[in-house]
Amino acid sequence: MPDCLFCKIVAGEIPATVVAEDDQVLAFKDINPQAPVHVLVIPKRHIANTATATESDEPLIGHVLRMGCRVAVEAGVDESGFRLVLNRGPDSGEAVPHLHLHVLGGRRLAWPPG
Amino acid sequence: MPDCLFCKIVAGEIPATVVAEDDQVLAFKDINPQAPVHVLVIPKRHIANTATATESDEPLIGHVLRMGCRVAVEAGVDESGFRLVLNRGPDSGEAVPHLHLHVLGGRRLAWPPG
Repeated sequence: MPDCLFCKIVAGEIPATVVAEDDQVLAFKDINPQAPVHVLVIPKRHIANTATATESDEPLIGHVLRMGCRVAVEAGVDESGFRLVLNRGPDSGEAVPHLHLHVLGGRRLAWPPG
Repeated sequence: MPDCLFCKIVAGEIPATVVAEDDQVLAFKDINPQAPVHVLVIPKRHIANTATATESDEPLIGHVLRMGCRVAVEAGVDESGFRLVLNRGPDSGEAVPHLHLHVLGGRRLAWPPG
C-alpha cells in the first residue's frame, strides 16, 4: 500500500529498529514505548486489521502472534511475563491501519488493559 | 486437560454465558468484566498459551483472533473500536493456563494497555 507507514518500513523506506524478521513478518521497536520491552510485529503483506482479515489470513495472523512470543523470549521477558495487544477502531486508539501486534513486557502490566 | 477450568467449560461441566461457538473455538463472557463488552475466546483443544503453541497451531490461533473480531461485530463495537489482549506469565496477570483471548469494547480504552 503506497501510503502505508508500515509498508514503508517493510520496504526499508522509513527506518526502524528491527529486532526480528522472517519471510512473512517484521518485528521492530515501538517509537513511543510504554514498557521496557515494547515491540510491534507486523505481517509484511498489507492486512489492514484483524477485522478485515479473511480465513485465508488465519495462518499468517497466528504466525504474527508466535513471532510476538519469540520476541518476548529473545528480550528475556518470557518468564516474567508479557502482554500481546491488538487495537481496532477509535475506542482502542488504533493509529496505523496496517495490522500490528504490540508486545509489552519488562514491568508489571496492570488490569484492566486500558 | 482434566484439571483445566476452560476445558471444563468446553465440556459443559462448568457453566458459562456462551456468545459464539464453532467447531474449533468457544466465546463466552468474562465473569469479571472490565468493559461493557468483555468476552473470552478460547480454542476448544487445550493449548496452554501462545508461548507453548507450535507452528501447526498457527491457523487455530489466527482463527481465535478472527472469532474475537466476529464477537466484536456481533456486540456492536466494531465501529466504536475494541481491543484484543493475550496475557502470558506473572507480569501480565495471566490467570488460567489455557490460551484465551480477551475481547474488550464498549468504552474508551486507555493507553498504555495496563
